[in-house]
Amino acid sequence: MFETLYDAKSIAIVGASLDRQKIGNAVMENLVKEGYGGRILPVNPSHDEIMGFKCFKSVEELPQEVDLAIIALPARAAMNALDQCVRKSVRFVVLIAGGFSETGDEGRELELQIRNRIAGTDTRVIGPNTVGVLFPPSRINTALTPWERIFYPGKGEVAFISQSGALGLLVMDSITEFGMGISGFVNIGNRVDISEIDMLELFYSDSTTRSIVLYLESISDGQKFFDTLKKVNPVKPVVVLKTGRSDESSRAASFHTGAMASDDRVFDGVLRQVGVIRAYDETELLDYGKVLAYQKPPAGNRIAVVTTAGGVGVVTTDALTFSANGDGMRMATLSEEEKNELRKYVLPFASVNNPVDLTADGSGEAYESILNILARSENVDGIIAYALPQTPKIDMGIVPSLANTSKLKPLVVGSIGNKLAKPILSKLEESRVPAYPSIERAVKAMRALNRYGEYLRREQVAN
Amino acid sequence: MFETLYDAKSIAIVGASLDRQKIGNAVMENLVKEGYGGRILPVNPSHDEIMGFKCFKSVEELPQEVDLAIIALPARAAMNALDQCVRKSVRFVVLIAGGFSETGDEGRELELQIRNRIAGTDTRVIGPNTVGVLFPPSRINTALTPWERIFYPGKGEVAFISQSGALGLLVMDSITEFGMGISGFVNIGNRVDISEIDMLELFYSDSTTRSIVLYLESISDGQKFFDTLKKVNPVKPVVVLKTGRSDESSRAASFHTGAMASDDRVFDGVLRQVGVIRAYDETELLDYGKVLAYQKPPAGNRIAVVTTAGGVGVVTTDALTFSANGDGMRMATLSEEEKNELRKYVLPFASVNNPVDLTADGSGEAYESILNILARSENVDGIIAYALPQTPKIDMGIVPSLANTSKLKPLVVGSIGNKLAKPILSKLEESRVPAYPSIERAVKAMRALNRYGEYLRREQVAN
Repeated sequence: MFETLYDAKSIAIVGASLDRQKIGNAVMENLVKEGYGGRILPVNPSHDEIMGFKCFKSVEELPQEVDLAIIALPARAAMNALDQCVRKSVRFVVLIAGGFSETGDEGRELELQIRNRIAGTDTRVIGPNTVGVLFPPSRINTALTPWERIFYPGKGEVAFISQSGALGLLVMDSITEFGMGISGFVNIGNRVDISEIDMLELFYSDSTTRSIVLYLESISDGQKFFDTLKKVNPVKPVVVLKTGRSDESSRAASFHTGAMASDDRVFDGVLRQVGVIRAYDETELLDYGKVLAYQKPPAGNRIAVVTTAGGVGVVTTDALTFSANGDGMRMATLSEEEKNELRKYVLPFASVNNPVDLTADGSGEAYESILNILARSENVDGIIAYALPQTPKIDMGIVPSLANTSKLKPLVVGSIGNKLAKPILSKLEESRVPAYPSIERAVKAMRALNRYGEYLRREQVAN
Repeated sequence: MFETLYDAKSIAIVGASLDRQKIGNAVMENLVKEGYGGRILPVNPSHDEIMGFKCFKSVEELPQEVDLAIIALPARAAMNALDQCVRKSVRFVVLIAGGFSETGDEGRELELQIRNRIAGTDTRVIGPNTVGVLFPPSRINTALTPWERIFYPGKGEVAFISQSGALGLLVMDSITEFGMGISGFVNIGNRVDISEIDMLELFYSDSTTRSIVLYLESISDGQKFFDTLKKVNPVKPVVVLKTGRSDESSRAASFHTGAMASDDRVFDGVLRQVGVIRAYDETELLDYGKVLAYQKPPAGNRIAVVTTAGGVGVVTTDALTFSANGDGMRMATLSEEEKNELRKYVLPFASVNNPVDLTADGSGEAYESILNILARSENVDGIIAYALPQTPKIDMGIVPSLANTSKLKPLVVGSIGNKLAKPILSKLEESRVPAYPSIERAVKAMRALNRYGEYLRREQVAN
């Protein structure tokens, strides 16, 4: 049923405006700029036309079967527009306005009214207190932040469900740095109707999504959430950033989206039981979503590390074998035969123990040969390879080698630097190789992948 | 005595070359491009002139009193050149070549020879197995990686001592992203003579350095290291990234720089005793160095958080109050008077509890007023403020407000995003406001600052 939302053929903008100070202006402009190809139906009693589109005087005047209506009006006016949308059987409504439960009793009363008005009707509501949705595959963008302020990501395979709108927009802007895309973004806001559970169902069903990440300050329905994760996670890995770990942050959250927090330890136990990876900040959230979308999990926990800078190998070994970063992973032990094979491609004094260090002399060809040996090794379950631009013989040419390796064995790429490192990371992103601009982020991504693999194996044994 | 190194007036390049495949070519070009204003003295028997500079046939032919000689020759040839430098009383020699203790017994023997040859002479050696030094204030750059591959940082206040050359270069390239500079970089390499202790002395004495960060795989002399840190850290805060935390990574390190690792728990205890902050990856290392160079530590652990995005405030509260990230810090409790004051600058429903949330409506003026209230508050020891570009009224204009606040009270700025977030971070860097592109990095930086403050207070009580 959520396909109508994800692939809406007609979108009404109630409160569309020519006034650049009005939200209805930014929303309409974003939708047009996104290149949305369906019907755009601005609603505003004072205009005949907005941005070249025929403007309707009221919701009542709209044509039949509107898939999605974005109500860009203040809370009280939005309530009237919602009534009209219900009468018109508009399928989905995005209620942008704040001023509901997050502001106190009066707002809570308004939310109750929304629930009553849509109960038993054909209309489903996203929000209120939301920036709406972004569905790059259907070029739908209902967000209100103009393109001058942030970059919106293009089409990708990671779905993003967020209780917070601003955090969602900022994180999306962040991931554009290396060109990462999303399959969809939904800001559930105050979640008066459509919840994280509904949106998990949406992205579970759609064919573009390969992993799902959630930012939550509270859970709408614990049991249903658990049941849904249990169904979704084995097929499409889920990552959750859930705040309110302490009393102080729960209090902060209640001011923000009117959320009521549950006991964090209970929540943590539930996530472990269903094998869902937990993130603790916005960087981890999307980093883990990316690795889980781009790579199959390793069959075991033995990791090989390839580097052209010794120190980077040492720090990685530390992170993998000592700290919580590498939790559950260990350094692969290579056979003497494999080491002899590797020696052909490195200087006499370079290390062919794991980490394999090509040193400053390493060429793209040697790098490729080493990746091939590790990809075929029965002693290696996963590879962390570094793309480091400081040496004379390593350049963009290693990207295809890394992309090929990632098809043979779970691979995560790390890099450090700016001038050439960033273009290499962007190129790797194009090839859907999970790549990260620091040692820690690369190691943590492999850990998330490994944990998901452990969960799948546990599930297999249980079934 | 290390001033002669830091401010060398004449630099010889032994093995300077016109052949772009040779290290002596890149080294010379880097020095010229850096804009070094002292005497550049290329040494090569086959040329009369290199890059417009008079070329000397041998070290013997060099003028008297060469402050620094960079020997860009392979190991065995480098040994001869070193002998000549010693006879010529060259003050400092950078031995670039690898092929020493990191390759086995033969190399160890060569290092012993170096020690013997310089014992009792005027010559001090950096390396071997080093990319040398970068001193932006004197425009000295002996590194061999060409400018086409990485960006070298400009002048700043953080000194960087690294056992690994490649890791050092890559990290320096990284920090150029937002324009961070350094007061100096020294790659001690195999550390046959000049050690991390000597370089701590150098940066302790120079007037530009305000904090010192070290990447180490082993310690040259435990007792001396401890004594030096004890002297340096109260004046110029020190951050250490020390690898070899596990047996496996110690093994990796021994292949890399021939280092012998000591027990990590002992090392950790020593650092705690002298109040030195420990970093666990390359990002933390420079993040902590930056905050300690740019900001005085807070007088206590009560932190206020300012945001224009509720979710960002919630995640920050979590990190501060629950996880190890915020270890030792707590959320400041504002007085009713202060809250009433704050209410003047936010919408009626926005939170003036800590975190203070300006919401999407927040303007630069309101932001500034709120910062002023918090900077003056006796209930607040430090401020984490977010510069988030998603809302219509926040832009580059908040940078001066943040810079002013940072002079009144310890401040760390966080941001998330790409399009406007990155220019804002660069602008903050120009004003020496410690700013970071993620919640986690901002919170961890404030934690490092808080820990350093705790150490200083502990020291004061003890003395």
